[in-house]
Amino acid sequence: MKQSTLLLPTLREVPAEAEIISHKLMVRAGLLRQLVSGVYTYLPLGYRVLRNVQRIVREEMDRAGAQEISMPAIQPAELWKETGRWEAYGPELMRLKDRHDRDFVLGPTHEEVVTSLVRDNLNSYKKLPINLYQIQTKYRDEVRPRFGVIRSREFVMKDAYSFDTSREGLDASYDSMYGAYSRIFTRAGLNFRPVEADAGAIGGKGTHEFMALSEIGEDTIAYCTSCDYAANLEKAEVVYKQEDRVASAGELEKVPTPDVKTIEQLMNHFNFEARSFIKALVFKADDRFVIGLVRGDHELNDVKLKNIVDANVLEMASEAELAQLGLPLGFIGPFNLPDEIEVYADSLVQDMIDVIAGANEVDMHYRNVVPGRDFNVKAYADLRNVVEGDECPRCGGHIAFARGIEVGHVFKLGTRYSEKMGAKFLDVNGKEQLMVMGCYGIGVSRTAAACVEQNNDENGIIWPWEMAPFHVHVVPVNVKNEEQKQLAEDIYSKLCEAGYDVLLDDRAERAGVKFKDADLIGLPIRITVGAKAGEGIVECKLRRSGEGQDIHMDELLAHVAQLAGELQA
Amino acid sequence: MKQSTLLLPTLREVPAEAEIISHKLMVRAGLLRQLVSGVYTYLPLGYRVLRNVQRIVREEMDRAGAQEISMPAIQPAELWKETGRWEAYGPELMRLKDRHDRDFVLGPTHEEVVTSLVRDNLNSYKKLPINLYQIQTKYRDEVRPRFGVIRSREFVMKDAYSFDTSREGLDASYDSMYGAYSRIFTRAGLNFRPVEADAGAIGGKGTHEFMALSEIGEDTIAYCTSCDYAANLEKAEVVYKQEDRVASAGELEKVPTPDVKTIEQLMNHFNFEARSFIKALVFKADDRFVIGLVRGDHELNDVKLKNIVDANVLEMASEAELAQLGLPLGFIGPFNLPDEIEVYADSLVQDMIDVIAGANEVDMHYRNVVPGRDFNVKAYADLRNVVEGDECPRCGGHIAFARGIEVGHVFKLGTRYSEKMGAKFLDVNGKEQLMVMGCYGIGVSRTAAACVEQNNDENGIIWPWEMAPFHVHVVPVNVKNEEQKQLAEDIYSKLCEAGYDVLLDDRAERAGVKFKDADLIGLPIRITVGAKAGEGIVECKLRRSGEGQDIHMDELLAHVAQLAGELQA
Repeated sequence: MKQSTLLLPTLREVPAEAEIISHKLMVRAGLLRQLVSGVYTYLPLGYRVLRNVQRIVREEMDRAGAQEISMPAIQPAELWKETGRWEAYGPELMRLKDRHDRDFVLGPTHEEVVTSLVRDNLNSYKKLPINLYQIQTKYRDEVRPRFGVIRSREFVMKDAYSFDTSREGLDASYDSMYGAYSRIFTRAGLNFRPVEADAGAIGGKGTHEFMALSEIGEDTIAYCTSCDYAANLEKAEVVYKQEDRVASAGELEKVPTPDVKTIEQLMNHFNFEARSFIKALVFKADDRFVIGLVRGDHELNDVKLKNIVDANVLEMASEAELAQLGLPLGFIGPFNLPDEIEVYADSLVQDMIDVIAGANEVDMHYRNVVPGRDFNVKAYADLRNVVEGDECPRCGGHIAFARGIEVGHVFKLGTRYSEKMGAKFLDVNGKEQLMVMGCYGIGVSRTAAACVEQNNDENGIIWPWEMAPFHVHVVPVNVKNEEQKQLAEDIYSKLCEAGYDVLLDDRAERAGVKFKDADLIGLPIRITVGAKAGEGIVECKLRRSGEGQDIHMDELLAHVAQLAGELQA
Repeated sequence: MKQSTLLLPTLREVPAEAEIISHKLMVRAGLLRQLVSGVYTYLPLGYRVLRNVQRIVREEMDRAGAQEISMPAIQPAELWKETGRWEAYGPELMRLKDRHDRDFVLGPTHEEVVTSLVRDNLNSYKKLPINLYQIQTKYRDEVRPRFGVIRSREFVMKDAYSFDTSREGLDASYDSMYGAYSRIFTRAGLNFRPVEADAGAIGGKGTHEFMALSEIGEDTIAYCTSCDYAANLEKAEVVYKQEDRVASAGELEKVPTPDVKTIEQLMNHFNFEARSFIKALVFKADDRFVIGLVRGDHELNDVKLKNIVDANVLEMASEAELAQLGLPLGFIGPFNLPDEIEVYADSLVQDMIDVIAGANEVDMHYRNVVPGRDFNVKAYADLRNVVEGDECPRCGGHIAFARGIEVGHVFKLGTRYSEKMGAKFLDVNGKEQLMVMGCYGIGVSRTAAACVEQNNDENGIIWPWEMAPFHVHVVPVNVKNEEQKQLAEDIYSKLCEAGYDVLLDDRAERAGVKFKDADLIGLPIRITVGAKAGEGIVECKLRRSGEGQDIHMDELLAHVAQLAGELQA
């Protein structure tokens, strides 16, 4: 394609709304323009990148035996009522009415539609397993759209749904998707890590998130520095090892702590370390209330607590609810609780001796607290967030933290949807059974952005081969020089014929402007046609390494083929 | 792909909601399923067809030098207010609010978005002309969705927008799109006709509709049986030739016509032909009222009238408005009119002598009416619909009617949007000028349906080569016969390797079921592997002609290549 006629509005200045490097570069390199908060237009270069992601995704999904379909973005509310999500989904769900005042949603996901489709069109074990996918525009009314297309309100996703006759079948479908995702993100040039995530009621290795590692990631990943264990923070297991216990030195004693509420205030007041206090948090778990205890230097993990208490919804108790229970915020502890409140504690709490905990009285704490002696716990369990330096649950190595952008998610749904929507099949004995489902998502636009986030330098983007909007940038230094112009056009034609995607900078701009733009756009190979054009010599340069060398026209195609091979390796 | 694992739910019975053959076949052949009125899911086969249309469109748009982008479906109301379409667009426009209560539309079209994009990112004649296109899901809340994906509420369109520095530039952009569209619909296997359509204020040859000819088409096309002239009904020109005038035989005379209101009632009452009456219709043209006159046997063409009176909006006067004007419905004529009402008449009216017209009094008409003598006309012009048998305005041949499905539309917008939205460029002298725009749409899903509507027989669909979801259907008669099974799989692999899209019917179904499904699905070439499998002989049959012949395996690839060549010719 010729640059002179291409809509490729590069910018020197950094767009005001962009906080992160990928967003800045995607706007500056003329890939994206914002229409309104969280809603973007893809310009020609950006759309070529998006189509690259789609191509990679499509090839790997097809290779894994999935079948491509296309479901509607507008979905009738009735379907969402069948699963209860019409009520349960918050303001992120975009809703609208048609001219007959019927309710619709703009789909953020398609479990309801695909389950109804399969329920209505497939009823025999003979047609199972099946995996249906689509690459489609999705809608989510983010409270705070940010980071360009990483967190936007209209975005492109690949979503897939597998239907199996059994748990074992689901495991196989899941593994197949796990493999496909690994290939997809590798081909997309991402430095990524599949991490275990919380599977809720499913349990086990029921879900993985694929994380592109990045400082700006909104998710924390706990990973082992020795083995390949990785999990997100809510899932990462903590290994409990009993600590040395000393005998108690004293009796339980109530002490006044006027207005001393937080761990920090307690540390100042008593001049103890954080580990000398018991932190108590009250939650509403479905219809009942529970208290979770962790050591003062730890964070309670509410997902772990939710799983232990087997709740559908677990939320921090509100101030009103605390007041109703007679629990004074800042002074809550495992003492004198109403009978109906269950106490759960992190495993390490059982080793705490002579520590300090809230007395459930305003401005009062207890000291010399000994769990088991002074209060009862319904169960000790892994209830805290892992911290850096913790032991790896797999190999005994050490846990470190990284941050990541979630680009994919594979999830075992089990029969959650097929049960609610009656998606059944006849098994080999003619008996009705519920289909066993999995769902698998990839953020297509987000993958493009994550790729830029990981592949850039101070001058611009550095595209991996398969993601590049064009493979080769042919840049004549001075198009008014007939020799240069002619040679550049020759090279352009030859490379196009050879099957490369080529961009020819045929603009009558100064060389400096052209080079700056070329670096900003970041195509893998740049061929500069300059002063030696008369001798048939051009410079062939790699964007990533900056390495360049003079090549004679006669050897150019072979040289480019070699570079292309190396860049794809 | 193997049919046993493909989601391809064929149906024997005809779906109740389907009125037309393409809708019936697309549901029966497992291409489509309705989610809710006017909203469809494309199953694997249907999506393959849709992607074929997209591929053809993309190749021809790229060939014509257009650049692919992707604009959002959700668009802020502010943009639509800039052009006044927020108010002007009726209930077909789907509207929604985000969580901040801001108004959005679900785009039925993208003039506003693309004009703002170009306005903000391009300001020099050096970057013009430019043509931006996208293939995207569009929304239109049809009052009566019907005919499957021919008139649906969510559908796929290709829309393109050209920006030029001058009218001449626009003409060239337009011609280029006209050519691309002709190639696209030819490749899509359509029997189509580009027809002139009304260009409104632009005038001239400013717009063409591309019509797939079909009995079920909702639009009437007037075409010449001798030359290639074709226009839609609202546009088709009528050639005026003065008729022989006889002298008037009598004086104007008012006659009572109690309750005689319609042309039909008048014909019965007076025992005259329809051509002996003047039909008068009252319209509100923007803020004023006009009357249009045509001969009783003709239909007034309100688009032509609108253009003659140069109105933005022209609508039939309501009963209330007629009452206010003192005009009695059924007895309206060009007599005793309020001064502010202008009278326009079809050219042929000037040749009417001693005819009958309404007296603008209840239950009264005039007879022996002579235009010019008895009433004044502001202008005579072409104001009627063409009728079959009329003279062709190009060659003098005869006009005939056909019906068509609008699959594409090319339109010269001129400066309508660039003016309202301030889309300007600096010309070669550094002077600001308005960009001159064109817009070009193709109904992608509709093209697929139109193709089925034109290509079928009593047994099912007959896919043209480029549109077919697969090229070849390999059907072993009995998969329990090891020889047949093995040979079919060999053929499948060989054809896939040779680059064909192949469907293998590896189901353990009866031969009759498989053949019925094969005809219904309608792939161009069917290879049946049956009793002669042991000798390496199979039957190779064309879906369209039904011609088949036995072919030995050794010659199969060459034979298929020959058939493929013929089918693509």
